[in-house]
Amino acid sequence: MRVGVIGGGQLARMMIPPAVALGIELRVLAEETGMSASLAATAVGDYRDSAAVLRFAREVDVVTFDHEHVPQEVLLALVAEGVAVRPGPHALAVAQDKIVMRERLSALGVPVPSWGVVRKRSELAAFLMRHGGRAVVKTPRGGYDGKGVRVVRDEADVDDWFATPAAQGTGPGLLVEELVPFRRELAQSVARRPSGEVRAWPLVETVQRDGVCAEVAAPATGATEGLGEAARELAVGIAEGLDVTGVLAVELFETGEGRLLVNELAMRPHNTGHWSIDGAVTSQFEQHLRAVLDLPLGDTSALAPAAAMVNVLGGPASGSMLDRYPEALGAHPEAKVHFYAKASRPGRKVGHVTALGADAASALARARAAAAYFEA
Amino acid sequence: MRVGVIGGGQLARMMIPPAVALGIELRVLAEETGMSASLAATAVGDYRDSAAVLRFAREVDVVTFDHEHVPQEVLLALVAEGVAVRPGPHALAVAQDKIVMRERLSALGVPVPSWGVVRKRSELAAFLMRHGGRAVVKTPRGGYDGKGVRVVRDEADVDDWFATPAAQGTGPGLLVEELVPFRRELAQSVARRPSGEVRAWPLVETVQRDGVCAEVAAPATGATEGLGEAARELAVGIAEGLDVTGVLAVELFETGEGRLLVNELAMRPHNTGHWSIDGAVTSQFEQHLRAVLDLPLGDTSALAPAAAMVNVLGGPASGSMLDRYPEALGAHPEAKVHFYAKASRPGRKVGHVTALGADAASALARARAAAAYFEA
Repeated sequence: MRVGVIGGGQLARMMIPPAVALGIELRVLAEETGMSASLAATAVGDYRDSAAVLRFAREVDVVTFDHEHVPQEVLLALVAEGVAVRPGPHALAVAQDKIVMRERLSALGVPVPSWGVVRKRSELAAFLMRHGGRAVVKTPRGGYDGKGVRVVRDEADVDDWFATPAAQGTGPGLLVEELVPFRRELAQSVARRPSGEVRAWPLVETVQRDGVCAEVAAPATGATEGLGEAARELAVGIAEGLDVTGVLAVELFETGEGRLLVNELAMRPHNTGHWSIDGAVTSQFEQHLRAVLDLPLGDTSALAPAAAMVNVLGGPASGSMLDRYPEALGAHPEAKVHFYAKASRPGRKVGHVTALGADAASALARARAAAAYFEA
Repeated sequence: MRVGVIGGGQLARMMIPPAVALGIELRVLAEETGMSASLAATAVGDYRDSAAVLRFAREVDVVTFDHEHVPQEVLLALVAEGVAVRPGPHALAVAQDKIVMRERLSALGVPVPSWGVVRKRSELAAFLMRHGGRAVVKTPRGGYDGKGVRVVRDEADVDDWFATPAAQGTGPGLLVEELVPFRRELAQSVARRPSGEVRAWPLVETVQRDGVCAEVAAPATGATEGLGEAARELAVGIAEGLDVTGVLAVELFETGEGRLLVNELAMRPHNTGHWSIDGAVTSQFEQHLRAVLDLPLGDTSALAPAAAMVNVLGGPASGSMLDRYPEALGAHPEAKVHFYAKASRPGRKVGHVTALGADAASALARARAAAAYFEA
């Protein structure tokens, strides 16, 4: 059984341990040498180059992804050659373009923030007028970790984006959404295999800082059975409605009235599911491998009443996370530390720490304290 | 941080996942290509060849082991060159020779079965006479998984071994031990780092078949706090007394009167500790890496009231364990399946299955049922 992963980042890296456990051969097409997943990198090449990707794909049983940036023409070329691509191009298309995503989710009857497409100041001004003078504008493609997302109060706030090709002529335009006055952010991950089986992890609570995932508590504190059920139904409905295979992460807003609105989708293991490596019977990385191979899915139960994951953003100002192990591991023998073998850089996700606990507060306190050793 | 492992078997393989998580570079000197740990194999060479081992060792921060067969002259050559070897030659010497082990344990005051050294029939006859006509004879070196161990009732039962060099002239002789009428077999694993910290996992119960570990239940059922305490004290005393670094597994007999006698020692991660991968906060493989790098040790608490590990011995008669995944994983979503990427062969350890549960009986039932899919 050979799984080929396009992209050599930390998500591909974190697929290595479950692949080793199950005896699955993992092959990674990395963007360059020395990347996070280099241990499993069997090829280096450009994921936009159909020939390079095809060469890589012919030697594996199924192709999956570390990121969602592989162009549709490359994906379709793989499918045309009979390569199993999971998730498939039709599903990935929805994750690759935020306007397409809003269209498809709306068509599926999934609750999303009020949205529209704008191409010029007057259209944005009209949207702002209808939504209390504030909105979120997003470039439809290429954004991640807060990039390509801007909160606006004035129609002139995205003049630079209006000048880009996306907003011109036959370009898709810019996505504008209401600024949801959410109570908190949640995330619901599920996995689905081609033959239909779907399994969901517990609903989790996420804290974003500057548009980047900072902390996750699993399960979401104080979530009623009804809220969990609603989130699962939403995510399963999206996975089935969009024919997603592999892991699907659904980022959600919970409003003050307890409504759930879908914010973003990721069709791969996602930062909000990293807690599952140490906190669930089956991690999102093992599950993703099982799902894309169309193997039966594993139990998603939590291993403790609460788990907390805290990202290491930036990393130590000098040296690497490894240099802090003597102090960090000594102070926190219960912490599960993950280092992505990436150099420190402000804001960069270089690792994460997970801690289990009797409740979210104690798990978060431990994970935060341990993660703090790796910053500044 | 670079750890070099001598030997490319499944123990080296199972060090890969925690090395990936912690960002430790693992390098394996494998006996040949295509071995269980081949993903991390950076060199192929004979572990009896000082020059080959030295070449490998010069590129890592510390050398450790997949097995205990590296000759003393090779180990001492490494130390002479300033290589950090953990566990060290002096400790490994005790694990490499069963007579030396009995001598050292006896000198430490550790309870062991009655034992002696025999070189000829008359000496064995005398031992049999004093121990009810039955005994266990062991070749001092090279035995594993029941090989080199024979239950004897007659002094002629090991004539073939008396004819070997071990029993001749200046050879060490054969080890003879009383056949302990044990109630059950237990195992106590601990890890110790060079600067002295020691941590112990819960005491486990093991079932051997034909001298091979078949099943492990963690914790040992019905073990009193006193028994657990006694086992921990024994194992910690041995680790300190013999200056073991890394993981030390102590195989124990529990007698009908509740006494503990040390049967065997292993100075590396051991089959009786595989449950810890899925069942403890820190697995024996992560802990071994931390210990040999002299990093602080991790929490050894169990993640569930009970865990059970069942070996897959032999593997499927046709094909590999992978071929059975659709049925096995479908029937047992809760099972944690580990495949060592080894071809099936009667009696060979090709994988194991761990299941967690509310008690040992339910965990064992699940692990056995899942493992059964991979045999016959």
